Amino acid sequence: MRLLAGHPEVELLALTSRTEQGKPVAALFPSLRGVVEIDYADPDNAALADSDVVFFATPNGTAMHHAPDLLEAGVKVIDLSADYRLREREQWEQWYGQQHASPGYLHEAVYGLPEVNRAEIANARLVANPGCYPTAIQLGFLPLLENNLVETHSLIADAKSGISGAGRKTTLTTQFCEAGESFSAYAAAGHRHLPEIKQGLAGFTQHKVDLVFVPHLLPIIRGIHATLYARLRQPGADLYEVFHTRYANEHFVDVLPRGVHPDTASVRGSNTCRLSVFQPQDGATAVVLAVEDNLVKGAAGQAVQNMNILFGLPETTGLAQVAVWP
Amino acid sequence: MRLLAGHPEVELLALTSRTEQGKPVAALFPSLRGVVEIDYADPDNAALADSDVVFFATPNGTAMHHAPDLLEAGVKVIDLSADYRLREREQWEQWYGQQHASPGYLHEAVYGLPEVNRAEIANARLVANPGCYPTAIQLGFLPLLENNLVETHSLIADAKSGISGAGRKTTLTTQFCEAGESFSAYAAAGHRHLPEIKQGLAGFTQHKVDLVFVPHLLPIIRGIHATLYARLRQPGADLYEVFHTRYANEHFVDVLPRGVHPDTASVRGSNTCRLSVFQPQDGATAVVLAVEDNLVKGAAGQAVQNMNILFGLPETTGLAQVAVWP
Amino acid sequence: MRLLAGHPEVELLALTSRTEQGKPVAALFPSLRGVVEIDYADPDNAALADSDVVFFATPNGTAMHHAPDLLEAGVKVIDLSADYRLREREQWEQWYGQQHASPGYLHEAVYGLPEVNRAEIANARLVANPGCYPTAIQLGFLPLLENNLVETHSLIADAKSGISGAGRKTTLTTQFCEAGESFSAYAAAGHRHLPEIKQGLAGFTQHKVDLVFVPHLLPIIRGIHATLYARLRQPGADLYEVFHTRYANEHFVDVLPRGVHPDTASVRGSNTCRLSVFQPQDGATAVVLAVEDNLVKGAAGQAVQNMNILFGLPETTGLAQVAVWP
Amino acid sequence: MRLLAGHPEVELLALTSRTEQGKPVAALFPSLRGVVEIDYADPDNAALADSDVVFFATPNGTAMHHAPDLLEAGVKVIDLSADYRLREREQWEQWYGQQHASPGYLHEAVYGLPEVNRAEIANARLVANPGCYPTAIQLGFLPLLENNLVETHSLIADAKSGISGAGRKTTLTTQFCEAGESFSAYAAAGHRHLPEIKQGLAGFTQHKVDLVFVPHLLPIIRGIHATLYARLRQPGADLYEVFHTRYANEHFVDVLPRGVHPDTASVRGSNTCRLSVFQPQDGATAVVLAVEDNLVKGAAGQAVQNMNILFGLPETTGLAQVAVWP
Repeated sequence: MRLLAGHPEVELLALTSRTEQGKPVAALFPSLRGVVEIDYADPDNAALADSDVVFFATPNGTAMHHAPDLLEAGVKVIDLSADYRLREREQWEQWYGQQHASPGYLHEAVYGLPEVNRAEIANARLVANPGCYPTAIQLGFLPLLENNLVETHSLIADAKSGISGAGRKTTLTTQFCEAGESFSAYAAAGHRHLPEIKQGLAGFTQHKVDLVFVPHLLPIIRGIHATLYARLRQPGADLYEVFHTRYANEHFVDVLPRGVHPDTASVRGSNTCRLSVFQPQDGATAVVLAVEDNLVKGAAGQAVQNMNILFGLPETTGLAQVAVWP
Repeated sequence: MRLLAGHPEVELLALTSRTEQGKPVAALFPSLRGVVEIDYADPDNAALADSDVVFFATPNGTAMHHAPDLLEAGVKVIDLSADYRLREREQWEQWYGQQHASPGYLHEAVYGLPEVNRAEIANARLVANPGCYPTAIQLGFLPLLENNLVETHSLIADAKSGISGAGRKTTLTTQFCEAGESFSAYAAAGHRHLPEIKQGLAGFTQHKVDLVFVPHLLPIIRGIHATLYARLRQPGADLYEVFHTRYANEHFVDVLPRGVHPDTASVRGSNTCRLSVFQPQDGATAVVLAVEDNLVKGAAGQAVQNMNILFGLPETTGLAQVAVWP
Repeated sequence: MRLLAGHPEVELLALTSRTEQGKPVAALFPSLRGVVEIDYADPDNAALADSDVVFFATPNGTAMHHAPDLLEAGVKVIDLSADYRLREREQWEQWYGQQHASPGYLHEAVYGLPEVNRAEIANARLVANPGCYPTAIQLGFLPLLENNLVETHSLIADAKSGISGAGRKTTLTTQFCEAGESFSAYAAAGHRHLPEIKQGLAGFTQHKVDLVFVPHLLPIIRGIHATLYARLRQPGADLYEVFHTRYANEHFVDVLPRGVHPDTASVRGSNTCRLSVFQPQDGATAVVLAVEDNLVKGAAGQAVQNMNILFGLPETTGLAQVAVWP
Repeated sequence: MRLLAGHPEVELLALTSRTEQGKPVAALFPSLRGVVEIDYADPDNAALADSDVVFFATPNGTAMHHAPDLLEAGVKVIDLSADYRLREREQWEQWYGQQHASPGYLHEAVYGLPEVNRAEIANARLVANPGCYPTAIQLGFLPLLENNLVETHSLIADAKSGISGAGRKTTLTTQFCEAGESFSAYAAAGHRHLPEIKQGLAGFTQHKVDLVFVPHLLPIIRGIHATLYARLRQPGADLYEVFHTRYANEHFVDVLPRGVHPDTASVRGSNTCRLSVFQPQDGATAVVLAVEDNLVKGAAGQAVQNMNILFGLPETTGLAQVAVWP
């Protein structure tokens, strides 16, 4: 809502919620008072089919029921949930623990990482918007894999996410007194974003990819930091140059000067992914540091970026928010 | 910088710093990479006199030396420091512990609280931008005093400020391990903002004003919350209506519905001051709750608002940032 | 559990929970691994009547059903909930929205503020352990009221509580992303602790007491800071001396040197209430600053202190924990 | 001070500070009011040689000047700085950028990790207390290396430290507004703890050890979380059993049940290091999660543990503090 409200080409027709229908959006989000002045609509009655595009920011397993009708009615769909991110139905059903309701669309959906799939997105009608961890991790590994610089069977992603990654819900682990002043890993045995990341990384290389992915819960509201480790095939490449070249024309990916470490606060509220690459002690391991705002480049901002591409708008339209620092 | 960079009528000519001259601004503020691409200039050589307006965001005691030359050269000046906020030279010198270098301008300077002094600001050449505490506290007491609803000799302002109020400097009390997970009052015996607030409040009423002002350090980055107490002269007024009416046409002051409490996060990064008023147990005391982002409506945002007024621009130009929540 | 586990005179017989029975306590509280090695017991079958004392750390409305049987069986009861804190049944029923199940005990229960009621506690069998806000606010006003120094009809308590005050439960307002990096008042129109505080304050003076109490939610885990305002009847008293004298022999109340402000971190994890008193600009208002750990002096620590008194143990037994700073 | 004040076998003779001499310790640390009632002493005049043991909690490069005289006077020395942690003088001088003042003691000093060197510590007179990162990382890798379960040339330690690890000083990066609500790596190219950790790990195995160590700054006050990655030599070992067995008799190392992730809050204020081990997707990589309070098991608590060993006291004496949770 924050991003769409300021987008010059967007008119907001409806925002739906089964539980909150009839209430002003701004009553639930006081920060939107004077900015978004509509009430939540009943999803069953909202005239979604009259829209040019519908965003699904719904729990996993919802969009897959509703997207097909919209698509057939000529509405473009950008799904921020996981429903169309995996190409293989069996894999999706295994990790998400349910039958897929519209598996026929899994292969049509374009994975909405513009820095990789820009052309396909422009021609898509259904965009699977990437997850927050997958965005940072794929953008971080991409130059190394595309340039065949690292061993692909022993990639490691040690990732840390701010608590807003869990969504606006009431769970014990995301309570202030549980999550604050603490830090822990979770799902070390296997996290749902793993197959999505591996599928993406596999597309960057000819080699078989293996990845260990350990997510952690970070006591901040917004921000993801991915620390990536990969064994170099051979010494010698100037890793900074590789990254700098790859992203030179990407507005939303910023490669920091040599030796500078990114911090999550520097991207708070903005659609930027900021990266650096290190080779500690000039040794055999490349270390990539990638930060993003999990709610912007890791979710809604990337969705708006995808919308811009879908509709032939300049990719940065409505995404000029400068990070709010401090 | 964040606000000016997105302002459609602003061209940034120079940003000066004696200690950082020659360095890219974005090297000190990575959030501004790709947004502000100039280097810090030497204040002695920067062509400030070629500007339409100069903002002083300097320590107290600096602007008073440099503003007069600029003013005489026809440049408008908006001073975010305290140098021109008090009308009485003796009072200023007592609270700030130094001689005033340009006391002749103290009476010319217009106090830049647009909701009170809009017309005077429009005709000013020197604007004294209010402090962060004074903005919230004055906006909170204003409707009560203008309408002669409360006793003025026993006003209480219990105010809490996020730590960015201290500026970007290295002090022990603002270290993460000192300020985090803690809360305390400071300067309970007397804070420099007290005379500024009392001077402002005195302008809203015929009665003699007395005020107890206790500031506290809040373990958040941005945000001020002022809790204001005043004895009602007599029961009966509908306080909500009084506030709602007073601010109905003020874009940057938002009076919340009856019974709703404002929170600082709802204004984070935006130029809004959000208010509610309560009368606990229908008793003799009015309680006003006022929040603002101390760095925006409490400082830089209000300075841009004043600039807009000074130059006849729509007051909201460049100030459409929606609060970043959560 | 943390305090009892280290108490040399305590043997922990049972810890009950209807929902968690059968699970190891340490599975829910990993900090207690190796410290508390029992499982949760079924409250219906636990042999509570074999104990010397039972603590109720239950939601309001629970202890009032179970305390009478225990008392009649000769077990002492310390209730950390609100069930026996108010002397007047009607008032309790009004504020807690239910019928009281054992109103006959309301007058027998001793209000467990040792600094006021030490002798009565020593002879009690049922102790109503004070709430967290009431402890700080009463200890802060006590010397002023006992010495008849202030007007009692216009007391103000602006209080701020860490989020653990809400208990270990899952609510939206106490989520990290809602409560963190924010600050707000709540229940400004009236909070359940108000009658408890007023009842306590009324006991310190002959005059009619009126109080405005505004609680706020502070983005820290542990800690309460009460900022108290009272109009002085007449100038002249040395307020520091009054406080210093009143608490000279109280082990758990620490009056800070003149001009020093207490901070909540300095009492984190300890049973200390730390106080200062100010008279801003030598004016007509006394300002008291009081801090405590809401879970220790504001709850469990005070309960252990009461237990020590009940059983004739030195009052500090098992309460020597030094505050964990930083 | 917090730990020593409650230690039944310790009498505190002097606490020295060149800059604070003459001031009460409790004036700088209000949490110690009523607990530590001495003033800071002049280090040049304090009768340190009359002590049984002297702790150096000084910047690197201080203890090496003063320890020899104390040792020759028969005083035992526990150095919490890095002065005696590395055995090789050249390596120390390279990483710490200065000449070592007493290199003759580098080989005598015993590295104070009790779980590895308990017997040597018991007979030592000079203990080099381990750094905070090294403690967590060595305890985490120890069972894997001792049992020859992993490749030693590609160890990775992704470590995150609370901000108190930087000490009580005023730097920009540890300011609340810089470090709070943010997360970043630092010293990715090489951190001073690297040679200390590698030296320690090398002692656990016959193989050549290589390690990539990336530290991060975590926006919490206390706590270290090390996430360790190692390639398994071959599948099949029950990693949980290996860890459980290795630490079964270690009071201060707690191996969590299978599948449980440790969190830093569970050890806040206590001398425990809590560990788990995972083998994601039953693959080729072992992941160890280790948490400790960097100021306790990572510094002062371990120093007291070493003191107990040095003087033949039960190792847990004075170290029974239960973690303060939440």
